[in-house]
Amino acid sequence: MNFDTLFQNQIDDLKKEGNYRYFAELERKCGKFPRAANHVDGEKREVTVWCSNDYLGMGQHPKVVDAMCEAVRRTGAGAGGTRNISGTNHDHLLLEKELADLHGKEAALIFTSGYVSNWSSLSTLGSRLENCVILSDAGNHASMIEGIRHSKARKVIWKHNDVADLEEKLRAIPANFPKIVAFESVYSMDGDIAPIKAIVEMAEKYGAMTYIDEVHAVGMYGARGGGVSEELGLAHRITLIEGTLGKAFGCVGGYITGSVALCDFIRSFASGFIFTTALPPAVAAAARTSIAHLKVSSVEREGQRRQVARLRAALDHQGIPHMSNDSHIVPVMIGDPVKTKMLADHLMDVWGIYVQPINYPTVPKGTERLRFTPSPLHTDADIDYLISALTFLWKQCAISHSVNVA
Amino acid sequence: MNFDTLFQNQIDDLKKEGNYRYFAELERKCGKFPRAANHVDGEKREVTVWCSNDYLGMGQHPKVVDAMCEAVRRTGAGAGGTRNISGTNHDHLLLEKELADLHGKEAALIFTSGYVSNWSSLSTLGSRLENCVILSDAGNHASMIEGIRHSKARKVIWKHNDVADLEEKLRAIPANFPKIVAFESVYSMDGDIAPIKAIVEMAEKYGAMTYIDEVHAVGMYGARGGGVSEELGLAHRITLIEGTLGKAFGCVGGYITGSVALCDFIRSFASGFIFTTALPPAVAAAARTSIAHLKVSSVEREGQRRQVARLRAALDHQGIPHMSNDSHIVPVMIGDPVKTKMLADHLMDVWGIYVQPINYPTVPKGTERLRFTPSPLHTDADIDYLISALTFLWKQCAISHSVNVA
Ligand SMILES: Cc1ncc(COP(=O)(O)O)c(C=O)c1O
Ligand SMILES: Cc1ncc(COP(=O)(O)O)c(C=O)c1O
Repeated sequence: MNFDTLFQNQIDDLKKEGNYRYFAELERKCGKFPRAANHVDGEKREVTVWCSNDYLGMGQHPKVVDAMCEAVRRTGAGAGGTRNISGTNHDHLLLEKELADLHGKEAALIFTSGYVSNWSSLSTLGSRLENCVILSDAGNHASMIEGIRHSKARKVIWKHNDVADLEEKLRAIPANFPKIVAFESVYSMDGDIAPIKAIVEMAEKYGAMTYIDEVHAVGMYGARGGGVSEELGLAHRITLIEGTLGKAFGCVGGYITGSVALCDFIRSFASGFIFTTALPPAVAAAARTSIAHLKVSSVEREGQRRQVARLRAALDHQGIPHMSNDSHIVPVMIGDPVKTKMLADHLMDVWGIYVQPINYPTVPKGTERLRFTPSPLHTDADIDYLISALTFLWKQCAISHSVNVA
Repeated sequence: MNFDTLFQNQIDDLKKEGNYRYFAELERKCGKFPRAANHVDGEKREVTVWCSNDYLGMGQHPKVVDAMCEAVRRTGAGAGGTRNISGTNHDHLLLEKELADLHGKEAALIFTSGYVSNWSSLSTLGSRLENCVILSDAGNHASMIEGIRHSKARKVIWKHNDVADLEEKLRAIPANFPKIVAFESVYSMDGDIAPIKAIVEMAEKYGAMTYIDEVHAVGMYGARGGGVSEELGLAHRITLIEGTLGKAFGCVGGYITGSVALCDFIRSFASGFIFTTALPPAVAAAARTSIAHLKVSSVEREGQRRQVARLRAALDHQGIPHMSNDSHIVPVMIGDPVKTKMLADHLMDVWGIYVQPINYPTVPKGTERLRFTPSPLHTDADIDYLISALTFLWKQCAISHSVNVA
């Protein structure tokens, strides 16, 4: 059997659909964000990155960089073991304390990524709580979907952000079955924010536990960066808050926070937590520094908000349609994978503007888009330049100005 | 519904069985390995770590530490995005090239961990190859088991290291079904090594693809650290070689190597590869430095072999039973979780020797053990001291000297 042919056939299908992915090869330049070098055919040129999830540029913050280097020199490159077998370091525990404090929870538990934190936690909860039913928002991230699927628990999907539908589905489940309402705060691709208060109240009404993914909110929302649940004063009413160290905190890794019993339960039973090398202590130290900084500094959040507003206003002014939402994510809908890639290629090649075309499976087919994430480090001039490029393109390509896709 | 009570009940059960896990809180000391500080109740003391999977001490190798710091200062703390969305850096591609070369393969693909590389690759292969059957060695690691389970492909378990059983199972599967034979080279807990040649030949006979996990072998076996498949000259006959950057290479992360089509296929379809922040470029740079070093330096491998042989000989001399195997892993079987923990606690508290008690679910119940991993940095004096401690304990506890558990 020729396996390569089997693989190649499926890759060819992707290419035919326009869904094959080409990764842009970058060189991040510490201290220069959002500028980076782009490698093409052995040549390098400077580009401006407009689609990073290092949302606040914390990955290059001098304090974070120093903390990471200091910890590498102090502890070495890696943890040297799973958490259980020689891999638990003082830096991990300090980070877990910092995270518990960030969300006002008793405890926290770190994972190698946000993906693994969602997947492990949901699969463990769903598989170990007898008769558990997981009520999952239709827009949930792949890591949650896969975790729920892996749990083999009964899964009920409720309409995206639709609390009435959630209630209907909650009502239909026997009262004595453990129920988990799983959702996100900021949805990464549309940038819309869940009606968290209404969801929490509904969950409370039906005795369900709440599981919120704040991956695209931590560091950026709430007075201390505790996410939208902090901003709304709801964190204490949510059972489990999940987040990442890889986006606004600028590092890598994921976590959950909740009660001592909850975290100990996941710690004790989650395959994806147990059977894997712990994060490097140096990553833990860097992440902790980033979190601690954003607990007391609002400059980054304010700068981000300012530039997000500025970009939106400029898009509106030029009549370039973008999805409206209350977050820092600015999606410009194109609706076709080939066109989206063509636009992105042109922006990169001609203008030195890097925005990755977002296609299936990251978004549903037919909703392909350019997704801009303005940071506090994008200057007004960066925005003006981006707008010039987009205005030029929109005129050239005769893509509808008037239809507002949101 | 009181969820905490549900969680606590299951935790209490673990405690009753003696299977509840207490993590030792360490502080790795770069340059002092295997020495580390152990935190207990706010006090710190120096201990010797005897159970690290930083098998060769590469996590603290000056070249690796320098490479990581240099790259943090050059690129920042994190990658800032998923591989597709601004997260692919030059350092990642250099690492993938290094890994492809290490195993003599066309291509490589890195993941956030070895766990994720196994889970993602097997779940993608199993779910996307029509009628795929995965033949899994009974001793395979949790990450492979979960990946296979997640794929929903038909799974056939063959007896551990038993090629005759493998053949029987291969023969029973229709010839036109894609088959994957999945196994490890060095099994981490028993330290035994698979009959790779016979397995590969059997797979070839039945047209099956071979998937080998070399997590506990890369860096340590083969003239360039390419694992047991390199040592035996078999790498080119294996379809997919999986490994980790977190053990002998001293960092964190995982990978697969194989044909261009295979790696592109996993890259294009694996949820656990796609939907997660890329490894920090600095981790990639550190790992590449470690791999490149071990390709040309054999001192570490030779030193490890010497100390492993020395420890085994000393154990034999004292009549302390240990499982015999051809690897660097020295399991001393105890067979009871409570006794194992008692011994480990005593070693830690009285002797300053840290060896984690290994219990369920890492090993089957009834096979609890102490698992020693001598490194090139453990001195002869360290071994003598460990042997004094164990000899003392074995006398004290009157644990059978004569029965050889292997
Ligand atoms: C909503 C959501 N949850 C979880 C994750 C995974 O987090 P991480 O990148 O840390 O794996 C992502 C993106 O990567 C995400 O968008
Ligand atoms: C055989 C085996 N495969 C895979 C893994 C996972 O690798 P990583 O620690 O890089 O996640 C481990 C241990 O952690 C292992 O023992």
